[in-house]
Amino acid sequence: MKTYLDCIPCFFKQALEAGRLAKASPKVQKRILDKLAMAIPKHRLKKSPPYMGRLAYKIAKKQTRCPDPYLAVKKKSNKLALKLYRHLKKKVMTSPDPLLMAVELACRGNIIDLGVKNCLDVEKEVDDFLNGNFNIHKPHAKATFRYKEFKNALRAAKTILYIADNAGEIVFDKVLIEEIINKWQDKDLVFAVRGKPIINDALIEDAFFCGIDKIAKVISSGCDAPGAILEFCSKSFVKVLKAADLIISKGQGNFEALSSGHNHIFFLFRAKCPVVAKHLNCRPGDVILTPS
Amino acid sequence: MKTYLDCIPCFFKQALEAGRLAKASPKVQKRILDKLAMAIPKHRLKKSPPYMGRLAYKIAKKQTRCPDPYLAVKKKSNKLALKLYRHLKKKVMTSPDPLLMAVELACRGNIIDLGVKNCLDVEKEVDDFLNGNFNIHKPHAKATFRYKEFKNALRAAKTILYIADNAGEIVFDKVLIEEIINKWQDKDLVFAVRGKPIINDALIEDAFFCGIDKIAKVISSGCDAPGAILEFCSKSFVKVLKAADLIISKGQGNFEALSSGHNHIFFLFRAKCPVVAKHLNCRPGDVILTPS
Repeated sequence: MKTYLDCIPCFFKQALEAGRLAKASPKVQKRILDKLAMAIPKHRLKKSPPYMGRLAYKIAKKQTRCPDPYLAVKKKSNKLALKLYRHLKKKVMTSPDPLLMAVELACRGNIIDLGVKNCLDVEKEVDDFLNGNFNIHKPHAKATFRYKEFKNALRAAKTILYIADNAGEIVFDKVLIEEIINKWQDKDLVFAVRGKPIINDALIEDAFFCGIDKIAKVISSGCDAPGAILEFCSKSFVKVLKAADLIISKGQGNFEALSSGHNHIFFLFRAKCPVVAKHLNCRPGDVILTPS
Repeated sequence: MKTYLDCIPCFFKQALEAGRLAKASPKVQKRILDKLAMAIPKHRLKKSPPYMGRLAYKIAKKQTRCPDPYLAVKKKSNKLALKLYRHLKKKVMTSPDPLLMAVELACRGNIIDLGVKNCLDVEKEVDDFLNGNFNIHKPHAKATFRYKEFKNALRAAKTILYIADNAGEIVFDKVLIEEIINKWQDKDLVFAVRGKPIINDALIEDAFFCGIDKIAKVISSGCDAPGAILEFCSKSFVKVLKAADLIISKGQGNFEALSSGHNHIFFLFRAKCPVVAKHLNCRPGDVILTPS
């Protein structure tokens, strides 16, 4: 996906948030925004939004000298999500279509991170979420929720690459992966996380903390952008990606980075912002499950 | 009020909106954002937000070669607000405290412009607004709604300068001014509008179109910022301002520009954005009536 002009104000918000989480002084926060502003005229819109997200974050890290401003957020998210694990499993197991419920939960999993970041009453949010009225039998938009195709692609695939998004959310991914493994025993599943700290995206340590290594092979994409931009990924990751029968790309950032020009890929995410929703011709908040 | 760092993303949104309203191509829209980005490092935060608003708009006007991108919005707003005039008068006249109702309506008047700009169903919005549940007897926050003091200041003043905000909204101001004139016959009231097109702010022609000249002396502040920044106002306006017994400053932009260092002034507006709400220690959307 290209960068839309409406993404530009959002880059400033992201950089400011990173600066604040790193406890930068207002002076340093202003310097972060100034440096980002200077980079805007050089940014080509045909590049995807995670290019600029990566740069905004690099600036914030450099100016604050904090290598991982979201470390505490990620740790909290993992812990909270792990607390929910049993509830999630129960919700899947008691569902008339466990795979569909697991997909739904995985897509909605990043509520955790939003809650932790925005200091909402996360426990309450999660409670509402778990007891929530989202009805998996209420059909999603047909054009952007292609569950039947996804199921067929899963059935046919032998090697599956699952590209993760955020810390915390990966516990929800774990539930989906377990459901896939449970349903089809012939899968060879690789779970890829980012190579370096970028926003609240999951790293190797998060995947291990959440026990993903017990059910899949965990690898790093080598990437330091908030979406798997292949030119920033390691050669070994690209090799795995090219060899996979099916890629499951999780989260909006990976959609933005990978939505043009890849086959055998399904994107699972919620359209979090109005720009992406418009791009997909759906409503903000919609649960998306679509091939490229 | 100083510029907060959270205002910076918003400047980009404003510039983009102006570019789009002027029907700029995406290339020109990007150029507007680039030029604005280049100005950010030079912007001193101790200046008020309308400084940067003025600059953003200047860039948009120059790059699009459109002298008044909001012209159609302003005309629509005026016409729509004039249609409501009789309803507003009725609402004031049937109220147990007509002045309080007029203040309330004046503060809420910029719903019109928001509606027109965002292509909401404005008629419906206005209907809801007029039939709305806002109860003037439900007390506003005491610290930020100082009606009794305002009434006393009005009673004591002979010369009043009313600094207007948006087109359309000025019809709501007209209702308040009529109520003031009706209540006290000794007032000498001057109504000041911007000197040059800036966003959807009212100009001389809007004041005349809405018939303000029939009830007050209409003058230009000479200002081309979205708030009466005195260094951009004409000398004659500053003279009127300094001589006035009471200044009624309408709208958030004028609050941002004038909130430090003026006596005999009351600010009437709704705290439209979270930054201003936080600055005032109130909630976004709150109706504000406060001296400086």
